[in-house]
Amino acid sequence: MQLLQSYIDSIIHTALEEDIHYVDVTTDYLLPDGHTSSAYYVAKDDGIVCGLEIAERVFALVGGNVEFKANVSDGAEVRKGDIIATMEGDSKTLLKGERTALNLLQHMSGIATATNRCVKLVQGTNAKITDTRKTLPGLRRLQKYAVTVGGGYNHRYNLSEGAMLKDNHIDVYGGITPAVTALRKKIGHMTKIEVEVRNLEELQEALAVGCEIIMLDNMSCEDMKKAVAITAGKALLEASGNVTEKNIAEIAETGVDIISLGALTHSVQCFDISMKFNK
Amino acid sequence: MQLLQSYIDSIIHTALEEDIHYVDVTTDYLLPDGHTSSAYYVAKDDGIVCGLEIAERVFALVGGNVEFKANVSDGAEVRKGDIIATMEGDSKTLLKGERTALNLLQHMSGIATATNRCVKLVQGTNAKITDTRKTLPGLRRLQKYAVTVGGGYNHRYNLSEGAMLKDNHIDVYGGITPAVTALRKKIGHMTKIEVEVRNLEELQEALAVGCEIIMLDNMSCEDMKKAVAITAGKALLEASGNVTEKNIAEIAETGVDIISLGALTHSVQCFDISMKFNK
Amino acid sequence: MQLLQSYIDSIIHTALEEDIHYVDVTTDYLLPDGHTSSAYYVAKDDGIVCGLEIAERVFALVGGNVEFKANVSDGAEVRKGDIIATMEGDSKTLLKGERTALNLLQHMSGIATATNRCVKLVQGTNAKITDTRKTLPGLRRLQKYAVTVGGGYNHRYNLSEGAMLKDNHIDVYGGITPAVTALRKKIGHMTKIEVEVRNLEELQEALAVGCEIIMLDNMSCEDMKKAVAITAGKALLEASGNVTEKNIAEIAETGVDIISLGALTHSVQCFDISMKFNK
Amino acid sequence: MQLLQSYIDSIIHTALEEDIHYVDVTTDYLLPDGHTSSAYYVAKDDGIVCGLEIAERVFALVGGNVEFKANVSDGAEVRKGDIIATMEGDSKTLLKGERTALNLLQHMSGIATATNRCVKLVQGTNAKITDTRKTLPGLRRLQKYAVTVGGGYNHRYNLSEGAMLKDNHIDVYGGITPAVTALRKKIGHMTKIEVEVRNLEELQEALAVGCEIIMLDNMSCEDMKKAVAITAGKALLEASGNVTEKNIAEIAETGVDIISLGALTHSVQCFDISMKFNK
Amino acid sequence: MQLLQSYIDSIIHTALEEDIHYVDVTTDYLLPDGHTSSAYYVAKDDGIVCGLEIAERVFALVGGNVEFKANVSDGAEVRKGDIIATMEGDSKTLLKGERTALNLLQHMSGIATATNRCVKLVQGTNAKITDTRKTLPGLRRLQKYAVTVGGGYNHRYNLSEGAMLKDNHIDVYGGITPAVTALRKKIGHMTKIEVEVRNLEELQEALAVGCEIIMLDNMSCEDMKKAVAITAGKALLEASGNVTEKNIAEIAETGVDIISLGALTHSVQCFDISMKFNK
Amino acid sequence: MQLLQSYIDSIIHTALEEDIHYVDVTTDYLLPDGHTSSAYYVAKDDGIVCGLEIAERVFALVGGNVEFKANVSDGAEVRKGDIIATMEGDSKTLLKGERTALNLLQHMSGIATATNRCVKLVQGTNAKITDTRKTLPGLRRLQKYAVTVGGGYNHRYNLSEGAMLKDNHIDVYGGITPAVTALRKKIGHMTKIEVEVRNLEELQEALAVGCEIIMLDNMSCEDMKKAVAITAGKALLEASGNVTEKNIAEIAETGVDIISLGALTHSVQCFDISMKFNK
Repeated sequence: MQLLQSYIDSIIHTALEEDIHYVDVTTDYLLPDGHTSSAYYVAKDDGIVCGLEIAERVFALVGGNVEFKANVSDGAEVRKGDIIATMEGDSKTLLKGERTALNLLQHMSGIATATNRCVKLVQGTNAKITDTRKTLPGLRRLQKYAVTVGGGYNHRYNLSEGAMLKDNHIDVYGGITPAVTALRKKIGHMTKIEVEVRNLEELQEALAVGCEIIMLDNMSCEDMKKAVAITAGKALLEASGNVTEKNIAEIAETGVDIISLGALTHSVQCFDISMKFNK
Repeated sequence: MQLLQSYIDSIIHTALEEDIHYVDVTTDYLLPDGHTSSAYYVAKDDGIVCGLEIAERVFALVGGNVEFKANVSDGAEVRKGDIIATMEGDSKTLLKGERTALNLLQHMSGIATATNRCVKLVQGTNAKITDTRKTLPGLRRLQKYAVTVGGGYNHRYNLSEGAMLKDNHIDVYGGITPAVTALRKKIGHMTKIEVEVRNLEELQEALAVGCEIIMLDNMSCEDMKKAVAITAGKALLEASGNVTEKNIAEIAETGVDIISLGALTHSVQCFDISMKFNK
Repeated sequence: MQLLQSYIDSIIHTALEEDIHYVDVTTDYLLPDGHTSSAYYVAKDDGIVCGLEIAERVFALVGGNVEFKANVSDGAEVRKGDIIATMEGDSKTLLKGERTALNLLQHMSGIATATNRCVKLVQGTNAKITDTRKTLPGLRRLQKYAVTVGGGYNHRYNLSEGAMLKDNHIDVYGGITPAVTALRKKIGHMTKIEVEVRNLEELQEALAVGCEIIMLDNMSCEDMKKAVAITAGKALLEASGNVTEKNIAEIAETGVDIISLGALTHSVQCFDISMKFNK
Repeated sequence: MQLLQSYIDSIIHTALEEDIHYVDVTTDYLLPDGHTSSAYYVAKDDGIVCGLEIAERVFALVGGNVEFKANVSDGAEVRKGDIIATMEGDSKTLLKGERTALNLLQHMSGIATATNRCVKLVQGTNAKITDTRKTLPGLRRLQKYAVTVGGGYNHRYNLSEGAMLKDNHIDVYGGITPAVTALRKKIGHMTKIEVEVRNLEELQEALAVGCEIIMLDNMSCEDMKKAVAITAGKALLEASGNVTEKNIAEIAETGVDIISLGALTHSVQCFDISMKFNK
Repeated sequence: MQLLQSYIDSIIHTALEEDIHYVDVTTDYLLPDGHTSSAYYVAKDDGIVCGLEIAERVFALVGGNVEFKANVSDGAEVRKGDIIATMEGDSKTLLKGERTALNLLQHMSGIATATNRCVKLVQGTNAKITDTRKTLPGLRRLQKYAVTVGGGYNHRYNLSEGAMLKDNHIDVYGGITPAVTALRKKIGHMTKIEVEVRNLEELQEALAVGCEIIMLDNMSCEDMKKAVAITAGKALLEASGNVTEKNIAEIAETGVDIISLGALTHSVQCFDISMKFNK
Repeated sequence: MQLLQSYIDSIIHTALEEDIHYVDVTTDYLLPDGHTSSAYYVAKDDGIVCGLEIAERVFALVGGNVEFKANVSDGAEVRKGDIIATMEGDSKTLLKGERTALNLLQHMSGIATATNRCVKLVQGTNAKITDTRKTLPGLRRLQKYAVTVGGGYNHRYNLSEGAMLKDNHIDVYGGITPAVTALRKKIGHMTKIEVEVRNLEELQEALAVGCEIIMLDNMSCEDMKKAVAITAGKALLEASGNVTEKNIAEIAETGVDIISLGALTHSVQCFDISMKFNK
């Protein structure tokens, strides 16, 4: 797992604080210590699984004494009805951890699944799918990790990691050329600069000042094709804004290098997984 | 604001840590101290606004020196194109806080908007719309608050706050009657017990043992109608499972008291709001 | 253990920070690594033990290498002189953890013991003993857990978990009937409402508006008997205010359902347990 | 206030998390924004007030908009019926913060009051009253501060701050003389060493090895008198163990320099203060 | 201030916890409330000041009531004897915050000063001075900020922000060409790759595979000159390893683009500043 | 290890957050799971090793699956070229933890080494070497521990642990005699008082009022000799201010009891240790 264990544990502790809190008045009051059960995760839809090690860790932190056996790994494609994992052990742990584990697993799998649909839709083109900074507070690492599990790439992680001159910066500062020039004097040699352009004139200006990465903001596919032709490989082009599963293939066909979608993380459709107990 | 200020601040600090981190290499390196701008939030769709005080607080914690004027309050219905709030002040603060504030505002408004659509769809019936525990780690309070802003009600906050005997508990313990009886001896006088039933036989058993709240799990509308007739006001009935905006009105017509939807919080479609700078 | 491990660990870490801090200048500077000892807990009084798993955990977090063997479990009744647990292992760990473990064990056992005395005093009546929100900062879970170990029940955990219209709310809002009516429109279906009444007229009003739980505030036993007769099972009655071990049996005899005591948690007499080293 | 603001705020945030949590379903759902009230604290007993700045801070952190006017300062002696402070402002803040503020104020005032009774009981003797490390997790600073407000002195704050060779250390290491000698080679020049002795022979040994502070553990008053005579000012003597308000004067009369009481912090009787709203 | 306020406050709270802890037994016990003094910072050496806003914030968090007037801003060059700032206000706050404020100010100014000496030593060449990841736990942001205040640039902030194939990676993976090729398929479009080479053969390989940034590890100045000639602007060259103030000018003269020094942050000589009270 | 495990873990987690953050884009993207390597630490200079258990713990927290074998213990003297420890196991863990472990180990070893040089320089005299409160935020425990590993002693840990009347306190309060007298009435019996004197007149005053510890601030060696003669064992004398490795032996020869050096912790020269991978 590439994510820090301390981060994962802290997310899980936060979730358990919210959900179990002081006591599970149902489970803790009903079942005796030592009661055991077995259960399993079943996919209720087709998609990509993500977060299995995290789900397993939930049961360890709730109380342990659960053997968790994953049938697949993060990134695996599952079909409706597939058994994703089986669990056996302490009934209280299984029942108390159920919701927290599923909330994480379904959210991450939802992101991986949506990303993967986009990746498949652009297959055969040059375009890579990326996320954005439109993430939920505290969950950026989980969400960005899920995007990579689905086959996507990560855009800059935060405002420290890469420079991006957006329309607002350019308007406030007064033009692409002076802004890029000023920024180059300040940033370190490991930091890239991307510039957002709203039309082909701005694209020309960005290319003239030697930008390596240019974001085409809400452009029509027609304009994007022209942009690709104008750019002719002198910079990477990113399509952004109003990208959906309906138009993503067409956008990719324009020849852009990167397509970024805020919806991958800001409007997640959770992937339906059920936890069933064996009677 | 009913949420604790310390909770809100902690969520915002977490988000700023993620997004600004060490430095905003674009804004901090480009703009001089003291530069000022004005900007505004514009709705890109019709919906319910939620989270305005939190968005305002983001700018205060990023660096302050911003005057934030909300045109509406949480819960207000806005139309596409409406100006929701205006901001004036330090350009760096405005640019650095933009994404974090929008991420929160759009997520919460998305929840309030979806909740409100459901509330309107069941208008004229007896049914109340509630959330579930299917929330995202660390965000349960924000999400549950947004549900109430949209006109919904909160189901139990966590496993401490109310007892709920779900199918798994009942299978594990061996039947509704013994489980309810056992639980009643343990729980405090301020805690309610809800029981999940899968069919009308179980409903009869739950009523016989005097349950006050009964959840009808994934029942057909026909069965729910029968359940309402059988129950005859002796308990509150909650419809749960596979509720969508398409079938919610029909479900409400069956006469159930409560309809709960996990999707309100586990599959949030963010509400589109844009932050525009005045040139 | 029903309490979250992360909560327990966090309490212990806080206590160790306070007590050991940077170094134990006595033990760390005196003893070599690898020195071992054996020790035991002996009850210095009669009472109920509570917190043994937590005491054991203290030694694990201080440095481990200690075998802790509890002779009884939480809730056990012990007599003066009983050996509660034995420990064997690293001398430094035993000496450095001694005070922190005892502080927790004695406090929790003190609560369980006092609760249990009350429970025994009302044996044979209908009355259940409950705690209140009069707890110490950060220790509510430990304290409420200890009440249940002593045979008591938990009142609402916090202001989110149950509604309670106290005299102040009613005075501020203007009467029981409008306050209850207003509140019912807002709260979720899993939340109970309790109303505090100061006299029999208010009791009548509370019953008329259909309150399910009514708190009799500082009433005489005579009035409480009348209240029980008037109520006739239509609501649960809670006696509260100035309850002591001297008058609790008499209060229970009035027929009230619940007796709550702030003193169980706000004025804890610690239960005396000593840690002795075997020479 | 000598305590760090960040510590006080953190204690209060912890307490508000516990008590208000997500929402105060009574107050938040009942009262409109902007509703104002006035209230006051009244002593229900005679004692020493402690924690007023902390109580005031609770209302600031709950929501502010409350004017808090203390009639006395920490350390003031109040009589039953005295008005300790008055508050005016936002009704929601007053009602939501009431319990948290009182829990802190009553606990700290309880400690200051008990300490002060001991201080008065030994007036005219040489003896100073001190606390111990028998405190509650997370509350040591509050508790030790309250002891000083009551006129007592603080014993060592933690295991880093002072060395104390107790019976267990001495048994484990093998005698007072070698233990003191070994320790002196290790500790810094700002750290004092106190030695616990169980009888007059050990006292002689401790004096011979030049101990500056000697704790007389559970000695009879007769023996303590002899110890004072033997010591003749060559060391400070601390009486410890089984000290109560009944025997403390007699112990002080023996001529010991310090009397320490664990009960000041491990068995606190809270001081009764009521918050009343003006109608 | 580009650093997040919450980060700065958290560093200061940590430092105050360490230094003031429970009480300042000297100042709190000696001085009455309301006592005021004035004081000033005087440079004891020539250098660059860094951390003034942070020093000012220390006094605000210790207790406030101090007017802090900085005579210069971060980055200013001061001479021995210069008055850097004056403070007037609460004596307790000034005395209690003195050490914590100076510890921060002297450390940061030490980094800025050393960086600035290097910057001046390479003036007239093409070389930029950068830091490394050789920072102290919890202080990376403060330290990297101080480097920029001294006129240096920041190398990658962490392992997420930029890829760097060091000798160990290459040995483990089996050669520069396959490692660079493999990595390019995985990283996002905003991430740069730097490759470390140990000799001119490796440099040739790195250039052949199209590396944009190449680190020359511990090369002689002679070899670095050859490297610059071979590279001919096709990549940025970074000199690293055994750089000191003695050889840095000579290294810069070789024509490398970047010179990185671990010592800027791992072996900080604090800049001597004194806080003097006016009598 | 005398330091609390929770403190060490928290320092390491902070460092890993800073350094690995979201993902190690080099290592995580390059190497497959299960890849193993072996490596070792080699001293690049002569000195004292400190922090080995902490370095080992870094690899455990990064991902585990590493066998760490230390050849020496904290406090060992090593020579340039000595192999300090060997590691074998998961390549990703070794590469990802390398920098964090070294940053800690080199810093602590740097402190122990510098302390040890001073200890050796004063060998044969009466003087003990101590640290000060001039430490880095969050690192005081690590730094003070390293001083003891190098053979030094700890001065007071913080402002709670010992009283120290410095020149500023005395000027503000008005003289040594009244300040010492006032303080003695307030402090507990476990707290020592040290007084700073600037000349021999103040020394006389401090001795007259019975001070046990006196700090000679920035005095010439000649004056310190006189101070030693005047004091004649009636108090401990501490030399402080402008102590360097050049003059420390001469200072020690004056007969002072303690020599304190801020530079041991405020201006640490890290001790050079390299981590090499076996090919």
